[in-house]
Amino acid sequence: MHLISYDIQDDALRLQLAKLLIQFGLHRIQYSVFMGRLKTSRLPKLQKALQHLQTEKRWHSEDSIMLLPLHQYSEDNLEFIGPLPDRWLEITEKIHTLIL
Amino acid sequence: MHLISYDIQDDALRLQLAKLLIQFGLHRIQYSVFMGRLKTSRLPKLQKALQHLQTEKRWHSEDSIMLLPLHQYSEDNLEFIGPLPDRWLEITEKIHTLIL
Repeated sequence: MHLISYDIQDDALRLQLAKLLIQFGLHRIQYSVFMGRLKTSRLPKLQKALQHLQTEKRWHSEDSIMLLPLHQYSEDNLEFIGPLPDRWLEITEKIHTLIL
Repeated sequence: MHLISYDIQDDALRLQLAKLLIQFGLHRIQYSVFMGRLKTSRLPKLQKALQHLQTEKRWHSEDSIMLLPLHQYSEDNLEFIGPLPDRWLEITEKIHTLIL
């Protein structure tokens, strides 16, 4: 599981990043926070794509993207206050546990 | 180490939350993402304070706060694209490793 959060000033660049993350199968958890499981083979592609964003002229010097690999410990102890994001069980794959 | 991210619509409530997180010794990493080490004894107090925010009349039904305990694995493999947050070494406590 990975968590990706960002601060991107330019609206179009932010939208481009959000679309990229969705293409990679990640899910929007909060406005600027995405989460999901990335296939090992796809991680280097995503890392390259994220690093490439820095070269865009719409990238501001204060912009940032954080890519955080999560351990099972984080998933097991995560606390969410407020309505759970859409497809939360699918994201965390707890649905398998619930169905079996 | 904990990561806390939030989506809060009301400006004043969002500011109140940011101040609370700073009081608890957490550091702003991105606009709506904080990180830092919480003493075990203070964690339940923070959890209570966060849950209490939901009872505020300025809390919107779509608002959310995520509290994520991080494993050393996440810290060791974190990638940050863009300028590192202020006092980054202090936050991750890598400064001790560098000095020794």
